Amino acid sequence: MANTVCVIGAGVAGITAVKHCLDENLQPTCYEKDNDIGGLWNYKDVSEEGRSSLYKSCVLNTSKATTSFSDFPFPKGYPNFMHHSLYRTYLNAYIEHFNLRPRFKLYREVIAVKKCKDFKETGRWCVTVKNLRQGVTSDKIFDFVIVCNGHFYKPLLPPFPGMDKFQGKIMHSHDYKTFHGFEGKRVLVIGIGNSGADVGCEVSRHAQHVYMSTRRGTYVLQRTVGGGVPWDHVLLRRAFFALPKFLRIFILFRVLNSRCNNKKYGLSPNHPCQGNEVTISDDLVNRILVGSLSVKSNVREFKGDGVIFDDGCEVNVDVVVFATGYRIEFPFLDDSILTVDDRVAHLYKQMLPFHHEQTTLGVVGLVAAFSPVPPLCELQSRWIVRVFKGHIKLPSRGEMEAIFEEQKANIEEQVGKESRYTLQVDYFEYVNDIAGEIGCRPDLKEIFLRDRPFWKQLVFGPLVPQQWRLVGPGKWDGAEESIRSVDESTWRPMKTRVAGENETDGLYLPFVYTSVGVLIIMWLLSTLIYGVKVRYFG
Amino acid sequence: MANTVCVIGAGVAGITAVKHCLDENLQPTCYEKDNDIGGLWNYKDVSEEGRSSLYKSCVLNTSKATTSFSDFPFPKGYPNFMHHSLYRTYLNAYIEHFNLRPRFKLYREVIAVKKCKDFKETGRWCVTVKNLRQGVTSDKIFDFVIVCNGHFYKPLLPPFPGMDKFQGKIMHSHDYKTFHGFEGKRVLVIGIGNSGADVGCEVSRHAQHVYMSTRRGTYVLQRTVGGGVPWDHVLLRRAFFALPKFLRIFILFRVLNSRCNNKKYGLSPNHPCQGNEVTISDDLVNRILVGSLSVKSNVREFKGDGVIFDDGCEVNVDVVVFATGYRIEFPFLDDSILTVDDRVAHLYKQMLPFHHEQTTLGVVGLVAAFSPVPPLCELQSRWIVRVFKGHIKLPSRGEMEAIFEEQKANIEEQVGKESRYTLQVDYFEYVNDIAGEIGCRPDLKEIFLRDRPFWKQLVFGPLVPQQWRLVGPGKWDGAEESIRSVDESTWRPMKTRVAGENETDGLYLPFVYTSVGVLIIMWLLSTLIYGVKVRYFG
Repeated sequence: MANTVCVIGAGVAGITAVKHCLDENLQPTCYEKDNDIGGLWNYKDVSEEGRSSLYKSCVLNTSKATTSFSDFPFPKGYPNFMHHSLYRTYLNAYIEHFNLRPRFKLYREVIAVKKCKDFKETGRWCVTVKNLRQGVTSDKIFDFVIVCNGHFYKPLLPPFPGMDKFQGKIMHSHDYKTFHGFEGKRVLVIGIGNSGADVGCEVSRHAQHVYMSTRRGTYVLQRTVGGGVPWDHVLLRRAFFALPKFLRIFILFRVLNSRCNNKKYGLSPNHPCQGNEVTISDDLVNRILVGSLSVKSNVREFKGDGVIFDDGCEVNVDVVVFATGYRIEFPFLDDSILTVDDRVAHLYKQMLPFHHEQTTLGVVGLVAAFSPVPPLCELQSRWIVRVFKGHIKLPSRGEMEAIFEEQKANIEEQVGKESRYTLQVDYFEYVNDIAGEIGCRPDLKEIFLRDRPFWKQLVFGPLVPQQWRLVGPGKWDGAEESIRSVDESTWRPMKTRVAGENETDGLYLPFVYTSVGVLIIMWLLSTLIYGVKVRYFG
Repeated sequence: MANTVCVIGAGVAGITAVKHCLDENLQPTCYEKDNDIGGLWNYKDVSEEGRSSLYKSCVLNTSKATTSFSDFPFPKGYPNFMHHSLYRTYLNAYIEHFNLRPRFKLYREVIAVKKCKDFKETGRWCVTVKNLRQGVTSDKIFDFVIVCNGHFYKPLLPPFPGMDKFQGKIMHSHDYKTFHGFEGKRVLVIGIGNSGADVGCEVSRHAQHVYMSTRRGTYVLQRTVGGGVPWDHVLLRRAFFALPKFLRIFILFRVLNSRCNNKKYGLSPNHPCQGNEVTISDDLVNRILVGSLSVKSNVREFKGDGVIFDDGCEVNVDVVVFATGYRIEFPFLDDSILTVDDRVAHLYKQMLPFHHEQTTLGVVGLVAAFSPVPPLCELQSRWIVRVFKGHIKLPSRGEMEAIFEEQKANIEEQVGKESRYTLQVDYFEYVNDIAGEIGCRPDLKEIFLRDRPFWKQLVFGPLVPQQWRLVGPGKWDGAEESIRSVDESTWRPMKTRVAGENETDGLYLPFVYTSVGVLIIMWLLSTLIYGVKVRYFG
């Protein structure tokens, strides 16, 4: 009989875990306490405690090319950055395509995961599941457990002095759904991450004024960069990752400041750019520019009718929205199974607790990168499943612990101890490493020699997840074609009107380049300095 | 006794007319049929027939630097692009500052303007005014008339085949106020000018989907360009205007395509860029990108539940918004006084009818340019008043007519006969010409020799209206200081947080520039082509 796997949570991580268990002939059962699969993407009009929650207007901030599942690309007509409801449609299509639906058990809450008595020998887990509709609790035995419960459901509200005195409304972005109720209000949003920026911008179209408070500052990136190309087509590609880090930061800094000079807009951090603080928002710069939204420093303290910022500036506000992120919690696991201190979970490669006698429990999705998340979940699932099957050889427990400690120190050094970036990994370094262990890293040298245009696409095109399906276990025949058609798929949704026929790039005559320099000088001299009026050519 | 002037309409044009009449010791009386001054900017929650109308969210699309009145700059704390309500506050401050209020007569509609019997000798006009509160009509005699009734109040709805069959709602952007009522609807906006884009973008955040139909196509310009600088700081400056037209178009084309490739986004016209079709919108590209809004070609015909486009594509829609501009009308003037055919008014320099025995009637504000409008109105007012006073010598009637015909032919050649751009002038050419006749053109040669930094500001800084107050009649002592502080005034409103301290422009070490080239090649070779794994420096 095939080994059984308990997957906890049916969000993107859980879905990929189920899919890849099946790919490796394991028998997954996924418990989801909610009414449907989707996790964060299972949108509801009212937020619920203990559940991830989206706001109604949320749009993905990574493009369809880099965000798709590796063996199930988005339809070509989909917009590059899609509304959450469309992404959910895609998730459902994925589930139907791979016939995953029967593996999900809804309205089932996992209460506890404990080692079986024979754990030392078998590595098996005893999982206590509560059927929320019937109120019945039962224990089940599984060979493996994959934890996919997410980390966006337990709001984190850092305390500020005087908060109790404040007479206005205090809420967390977790409970923000729409702009309704904010009309005409003075609003303070604390935290300038992606959610904070989205909430602040949306509210600023209806509120009297919005203040956005930031402790560290940020750089704003629009969803597209130069010429309207999705940002991740430019910044997530091998050619960019291949550069040494100082050079990547140098380029990144320029890209981040091309839309707006973040310093002049009051946004940028007060320390050298390290490539960590980035907020994706199409609207933030515009809202600052028209005076609907002001960036402020950190809150020093609350007063009855407002707040005082670090710089002494006081403002009166009616509502404060904390966009200050989430706690990491595993309510069904005790510390002996998985240690979490200070937003850091003790995991080897962000996936495996390393102090058990048997490696039969893994975590998927407890990771963040300057990148889309689904490809990370997918590769983590593929890797964990292959670890369970014994196809990937792990280092000794001591070595795993040493690697974890080193990585933890690295993150602390890079992002500071009290940062929100505790789950941060270097995207390419991380996925390339895991893909290498799975054995699905494309052989670029071989491709370079065999097919130069395809090599160019792999290296200079966006790092699409299909790159991990070209070879090795899980190879997918459609991968190459999908990679080749990234460009077509990118521009297809905008082909709703024939445009730019007979366009001449603003040029009347091709030879003007040669004479431009001379002409500029002539004109400057004649028209500006000496005031001579000469008729234009045009 | 000083000469009397009848100013018709108290919008921006009328306000500047009154102000400059007073400056030249004329006695203006401004009749405004509405409840307050402001014209277009006198916002009301409901549109009224025969009145200009704004939508609630409207934000100016030119910056405060280039849009201000020449002797009354905006407060430095104002946002660069302000909400219409703030602009109205500014208009009121202007009126108070120059004590113009007593000159405005509200609730007075001008019914007719006719020549007095002794017009040949005196040039005087008989103005029939209706007091709308009392319902009483009376005739008054004026020495001069300045027509400032605007051209945004009579909606133009071009007919399409089958419109009568359409069962959904048809409206003009004139009657658009807010997104309310569009929630969940399928909406078609016809016309992709500034209003069309604003309406389409706003509605697309609430509607099911928005289609934007365009006959000619357009290029989209965001309110700011490279680095977050207001677009008119870059495109409206002497250094740019001094270039020959083909070069300006060449540069403009690049600027217009820096935010998005208009061709790939389905936006650009199907003919070479001529610098005419530009739509200012911060949001249009984003809304296309997330799939909420699609650009479509011209409408071929309406059907019962939607429309068919030129390319044969059919869509079903619930509401159609015509953002198709306005008719030009002078309901109080008969054709013998001012001829308007096909959106072209027969006016010398867009201001004076040239076939009367006396030149005592002028029009202010009947002009459009790729620029802010208030400085145009101001210079027109200054020019007309000086014509009335006899300070500016006009050519003969025949010469004026010839100049008009030439200009009309020019416009037709440039923008096509059936275009909406019939009022289009080349901004700098136009204002520089008028300013020359007024005698307020700065002497750049003298300034170049005397004060190089100030010359640089005049030539390479934005063309702020204060440049026309440095010398000549109407010289204002504050002009120079105001021009020098443009930069400070631009960034002041964003100084709400200390940002970018210790920023190092993304650079760790200064010497990296020299080694960058070598390193890139090394890395590409080692990491990409031969797949060697080398640890990053960073």
